[in-house]
Amino acid sequence: MADTRARPPLVSPDAATLLSLLRADGPQTRAQLAERSGLARSTVALRLEALIASGLVVHAGGGASSGGRPPSVLAFNRSARLAIGVDLGATHGLVALVDLGGTVLDTAAKDLAIGDGPVPVLDWVVDTTRRLLKGAKRPISDVVGIGIGVPGPVEHTTGRPTNPPIMPGWDRFDVPGYVQRSIDVPVLVDNDVNVLALGERAVAWPGEDDLFFVKVSTGIGAGIISGGRLQRGAKGSAGDLGHVLVPSSDGADLEAMASARAVARRLTEQGIPAETSSDVLALASRGDPVVLAAIRQAGRDIGEAVASCVNLLNPSVVVVGGSMARTGEYLLAGVREVVYGRSTPLATQELTITSSRGGVAGGALGAATLVIQNALEPEEK
Amino acid sequence: MADTRARPPLVSPDAATLLSLLRADGPQTRAQLAERSGLARSTVALRLEALIASGLVVHAGGGASSGGRPPSVLAFNRSARLAIGVDLGATHGLVALVDLGGTVLDTAAKDLAIGDGPVPVLDWVVDTTRRLLKGAKRPISDVVGIGIGVPGPVEHTTGRPTNPPIMPGWDRFDVPGYVQRSIDVPVLVDNDVNVLALGERAVAWPGEDDLFFVKVSTGIGAGIISGGRLQRGAKGSAGDLGHVLVPSSDGADLEAMASARAVARRLTEQGIPAETSSDVLALASRGDPVVLAAIRQAGRDIGEAVASCVNLLNPSVVVVGGSMARTGEYLLAGVREVVYGRSTPLATQELTITSSRGGVAGGALGAATLVIQNALEPEEK
Repeated sequence: MADTRARPPLVSPDAATLLSLLRADGPQTRAQLAERSGLARSTVALRLEALIASGLVVHAGGGASSGGRPPSVLAFNRSARLAIGVDLGATHGLVALVDLGGTVLDTAAKDLAIGDGPVPVLDWVVDTTRRLLKGAKRPISDVVGIGIGVPGPVEHTTGRPTNPPIMPGWDRFDVPGYVQRSIDVPVLVDNDVNVLALGERAVAWPGEDDLFFVKVSTGIGAGIISGGRLQRGAKGSAGDLGHVLVPSSDGADLEAMASARAVARRLTEQGIPAETSSDVLALASRGDPVVLAAIRQAGRDIGEAVASCVNLLNPSVVVVGGSMARTGEYLLAGVREVVYGRSTPLATQELTITSSRGGVAGGALGAATLVIQNALEPEEK
Repeated sequence: MADTRARPPLVSPDAATLLSLLRADGPQTRAQLAERSGLARSTVALRLEALIASGLVVHAGGGASSGGRPPSVLAFNRSARLAIGVDLGATHGLVALVDLGGTVLDTAAKDLAIGDGPVPVLDWVVDTTRRLLKGAKRPISDVVGIGIGVPGPVEHTTGRPTNPPIMPGWDRFDVPGYVQRSIDVPVLVDNDVNVLALGERAVAWPGEDDLFFVKVSTGIGAGIISGGRLQRGAKGSAGDLGHVLVPSSDGADLEAMASARAVARRLTEQGIPAETSSDVLALASRGDPVVLAAIRQAGRDIGEAVASCVNLLNPSVVVVGGSMARTGEYLLAGVREVVYGRSTPLATQELTITSSRGGVAGGALGAATLVIQNALEPEEK
């Protein structure tokens, strides 16, 4: 991101090595840091000085000692700065105030129409960010960045949506530039499924480097974390699971077979009128066996596509999220049935297939994770 | 790899930053290195000292100057060390002596049977490595490592093959340990398609971070480079394209539809006897239209599976290699026909689909790339 590169980094790549040890393994002495990093004691001291000056590292009291003055213990200060995470859906928005450790401190949500275009939606994001900061009594200078998830493809390097089908008025709009006119911090934009995958990993699977997140709602998409990193592909369109053909479907793609819209259409054909994912959810909550069978079949269809992804990517966790995942165990049961039956033993032997635990703020937390990583884990090249 | 971690690294993570600038952008002055790395001149000087002492960086004569003594220009010395790359197939072996810049200096090949088990095959690897080094008049201490590609799944962290179907006697065999008893250098083992992908990138697509390599021979597999890194998945089984179901096939997987063995079987059913990929190649070279049509259809079937991969991973380059790719343009034409017709416009707008240019030493070069990266690009954590 050209814009964020122009700013002096909060953490130098050198210091980031030590900071990542403190973030991952908790409070440590200088001696422990020197041992684990393989750096000389003098180098550790120099780099800690910069981290302590920035407030990111603090003294955390005395550690265990073999006698004499106890060695001082250093800790990552997750409250030193804040991140803003924004989850924009087709009909809702949620802004979260998040500390550097990934704890959501406060949120504000609103029903809004993404189709109203970028100006009113982003004005709400800016106003809400200011209000949350005021409530927390923190200045804008404490914010390491604003991460924004949107329901469409995004050119990651510029933060501009690219031909987003359900976002009229947003095509090629300079989202970071517009937000920065009001709040001058790094702004990173990504699609909603990518930020959901990041949020899910932060909340529920911090140790997993290979996580495959499937969002099933009005449409279907995937967020791919592979080798510990979100994979966006060459043009930022990776994860387009909705356009994968379902082997048993005779040429239909997954979105046409198993999205909330597809299930609603199938139910309508069977004499049970439904249109949106909310309709399907309401019907499922009443326990109608025809509805539950349709949801389970959608799960099987999703399972066919996911089985190919599992063979191809060999994730350790497949997470099923989105509004349709809130219909209970039926969707997940269908996915599990097909994936465990069809993927190769090596790929499934330690594979977990589960529902999303990210909660309503999962997307916003993932968006905040984008800017936290950007601030605390600068890339070397 | 526990074993290689115990050794002192050839390049410290700190110095690796400067070395990567010299490797990527060619000879530079100290001032240029300071500017590009963002490091202080004194830090650059310190780190260069270590790199010059190791022989990895050399003075490369004077640079352009605005007057006075010309500033000295520093360059990556690709001849400072060597890597050994080994490509083991079902019926052949090739050992390559490679410099640190990825140039193949010498090779030795042999027909062998992988099914004879690890001891005779690896003894040949050790003997051949020694012979190549002797021929080049270089000591073993110049070797940064031995990379080995094998035709089966490998547990990457230990270098042990895992239930490899066509490698009897190799299951869980400690390949690095066995080789190191004779030649004590880091030994990294990976499956043949992964090393082919790395070799292809090194030879033909050094600037591409998202490359999808499809190997079509007796079996079918893929090597996935995503975000600039080889993706192995949680258990090392990523890239299992052969078990992906072909949408139009009524439940058959890709290997059963489009491998050399499948094409040979189909030709035999049509009255043209064939068994191996060599048989298919020989028939194709005679231009029999029935044979060429069968190969093109195999390409279409591969295209169906690859189209899903393109939607999912959004690579910039799809490379088709393996023995079947040597049947001329027919296989590739089939792949292109389906992928360009089926993947989404965003995923295909700048997608290249092409044949492998890695050549006979492509796999061995990729295996050497594994150990070169391991030596020159140590990970921070």
